[in-house]
Amino acid sequence: MEGLKTYISENKQRFLNELFELLRIQSISSIESHKPDMYRAAEKWTKILLDAGADKAEVFETEGNPIVFGEKIIDEKLPTVMVYAHMDVMPVDPIDLWNSDPFEPLVKDGKIFGRGADDDKGQSFMHAKAFEFMVRTNQLPCNVKFLIEGEEEVGSVHLPKFCEEHKDMLQSDVILVSDTSMIAPGIPSITTGLRGLAYWEVEVTGPNRDLHSGIFGGAVANPINVLCNMISQMTDEKGKITIPGFYDDVIEVTEEERKKMAQAPFDEEGYKTALNVKELKGEDGYTTNERTGIRPSFDVCGIWGGYTGEGAKTVLPSKAYAKISSRLVPNQDHEKIADLFKLHFESIAPASVNVNVKSLHGGQGYVCPIDLPAYQAAEKAYEKVFNRKPVPVRSGGSIPIISTFEEILGVKSILMGFGLESDAIHSPNENFPLEQFYTGIEAIPYFYKYYVESNI
Amino acid sequence: MEGLKTYISENKQRFLNELFELLRIQSISSIESHKPDMYRAAEKWTKILLDAGADKAEVFETEGNPIVFGEKIIDEKLPTVMVYAHMDVMPVDPIDLWNSDPFEPLVKDGKIFGRGADDDKGQSFMHAKAFEFMVRTNQLPCNVKFLIEGEEEVGSVHLPKFCEEHKDMLQSDVILVSDTSMIAPGIPSITTGLRGLAYWEVEVTGPNRDLHSGIFGGAVANPINVLCNMISQMTDEKGKITIPGFYDDVIEVTEEERKKMAQAPFDEEGYKTALNVKELKGEDGYTTNERTGIRPSFDVCGIWGGYTGEGAKTVLPSKAYAKISSRLVPNQDHEKIADLFKLHFESIAPASVNVNVKSLHGGQGYVCPIDLPAYQAAEKAYEKVFNRKPVPVRSGGSIPIISTFEEILGVKSILMGFGLESDAIHSPNENFPLEQFYTGIEAIPYFYKYYVESNI
Repeated sequence: MEGLKTYISENKQRFLNELFELLRIQSISSIESHKPDMYRAAEKWTKILLDAGADKAEVFETEGNPIVFGEKIIDEKLPTVMVYAHMDVMPVDPIDLWNSDPFEPLVKDGKIFGRGADDDKGQSFMHAKAFEFMVRTNQLPCNVKFLIEGEEEVGSVHLPKFCEEHKDMLQSDVILVSDTSMIAPGIPSITTGLRGLAYWEVEVTGPNRDLHSGIFGGAVANPINVLCNMISQMTDEKGKITIPGFYDDVIEVTEEERKKMAQAPFDEEGYKTALNVKELKGEDGYTTNERTGIRPSFDVCGIWGGYTGEGAKTVLPSKAYAKISSRLVPNQDHEKIADLFKLHFESIAPASVNVNVKSLHGGQGYVCPIDLPAYQAAEKAYEKVFNRKPVPVRSGGSIPIISTFEEILGVKSILMGFGLESDAIHSPNENFPLEQFYTGIEAIPYFYKYYVESNI
Repeated sequence: MEGLKTYISENKQRFLNELFELLRIQSISSIESHKPDMYRAAEKWTKILLDAGADKAEVFETEGNPIVFGEKIIDEKLPTVMVYAHMDVMPVDPIDLWNSDPFEPLVKDGKIFGRGADDDKGQSFMHAKAFEFMVRTNQLPCNVKFLIEGEEEVGSVHLPKFCEEHKDMLQSDVILVSDTSMIAPGIPSITTGLRGLAYWEVEVTGPNRDLHSGIFGGAVANPINVLCNMISQMTDEKGKITIPGFYDDVIEVTEEERKKMAQAPFDEEGYKTALNVKELKGEDGYTTNERTGIRPSFDVCGIWGGYTGEGAKTVLPSKAYAKISSRLVPNQDHEKIADLFKLHFESIAPASVNVNVKSLHGGQGYVCPIDLPAYQAAEKAYEKVFNRKPVPVRSGGSIPIISTFEEILGVKSILMGFGLESDAIHSPNENFPLEQFYTGIEAIPYFYKYYVESNI
């Protein structure tokens, strides 16, 4: 990969300007009113791919948000790498905690700030620029496809059907994804496992209208009190999830593998300090990294009901709501878990309320074996730019589509992430260090090189 | 009270028009931006009193919302009745459940709809019109004072100090209040007991920012889950409140008195049907009326935290909040209870979160003996217009200032309410039946008559 460092160095400011154009598009997939922005993002991506050297790039309609597909086929006999990424971003609430406009990116303290700076606009854009370099310097060693979707943050709802319908078009030997983080700055890692996800919205209805808490309080079940009671019953004092059958398909990781995982550097005091918590809390008998990597979780992502405005309103509300999610481990089926929760949650509802459970989305977990040639190519690429072999880690996050790719297309994915935990993805002040951005662009072409070499 | 029925009948439409002018003022005391409306309501009330025949009526400043005081003194040797009422109203959330604009009153199906139609603009306005009748027909049998405050819905914060500072001005023999309900249409009742109130806002803080629920979920305490657990611990499976010392000052009502109270007509099936609940729920060992009348309660009035927008956002939030209230029974001190809750709630907080408890407001309970001459005058006044002796009842609601009047001014209050439970006070579509409104105006002058007669 000759001239790579020079190419990046000479085009630094242009790369940044182009990325900023992408970051300015408010492509929030979970909010219906941002639909036009999804189309703007899709149009932008076709331009990015064509400008970088793709033979073609086009926008595909789905029943939801559009999907962009582009490719450059140099020789049908050569292997094909498919880059998967997403152009949608998370909402920006709570907006008042941002120090700058989430959709007016800026560089401060060596970091790009803005919604999507890391997840996944910043990370996916590195692939466009690495591809541009290989094309322009005639060093592209294989065929490349780009699949950029617009619903990753809402569970990739329409992508499985798209994959079913375009199996030929999406045919590839490996899928390359940058949507994960490294352990720490200078300590590269490759995510070899992802948690699955089940996500529900629950509605608890008590009386048919908001009541005066004095006149009725004490005699009529309060749906907020009931919802709190029900949620508190979902986990026990040992941090175990109490849904019957929930752990049935969880494969206990061997002591040997747990020992290997424990070698990854981890500073628990630093972790607590960074989050400003006095004590960590999770399932008894597991370390922090195990709790997020190899064990499922149960989190209320949102709750609301009754009077939430200024001052004191004495009301016994009619309804209470919660958004609840479970991160699942490989081999737990998200649809089965979704059903188990619904069944259990409804079964523990007292007769004084009505409970409605809606499954919002889900995805399966994923495991990538570390003896895969593509994994080893990624390993060498990281080592080339960081001078350090990456650690294989299990991530707590979910990219539901990764396991779907394996099911439908029969292709493994390599999760070659360059994010950092301090990037505050999904949070106010999301950011992406410039160093990660440029080093990522440098590492990616080596993946292509080593991967193609391993195939010859 | 000669010509009373005729007077009301001839002025029906004017009374309604005048009330509507008052109802249009958006005097929500819990929302700071409505402060100018509080002054508009105060000015309106001085005009109402002067027009009705008061010698004087003026607006008094407090550190909070203004207070209106007006009076007509006909003979210092005659007894003095002081009407207490409030011009402030509750917020209108959830606004989308209203069938009409809460601040554009209208009559439909024989009821006045609008925020404050009953509580307390509709009920207090009856006193103004009853007073007007007595003055204009030269039948006012005693001195009258009006004390109209603007902070009842937020705990009458500044009224106690006002009472302390204006003891002479407020000197009276009995306080007359219409801010409660009758058992049912045609079944009059007088509220002889009120519950006290303690109201808190709690804030639970976990990590210092919203986290990705995949990367951190399972390892970091989720403040919503924790808040739910803490709330669920506040009551036990028997419906008892678990705060240590909470019941220490609760006086158990005798079996004999409970038997008398049980004679009040109560249709439990109808009550459930009206609220559309399959089962009622409360403290074991007590009936529905006892649960609201003679027992304390613990209700979450509002809860919020995390992502509450459209769709699914996978977040482990930094903070969760709840507004919580307890209705107290006479002899429970609200300040003592406020402290007991704070102490207990903070003590059960796990080390993984920070908990902050703020006491928003409170008030003591109240009991009115039924052998009081003023009570008996009210009893006769109801009997005169409803042809039925009113039932003495203990209400679940709170009017914190009533017990404060007794403490500071040494005067008992008669709770001569004309509301109905179906009036949806504090709720969307608050209303007040025209029949209750006009019958109230008719009953009030008889109270004056019988009360003065009993004093001679």
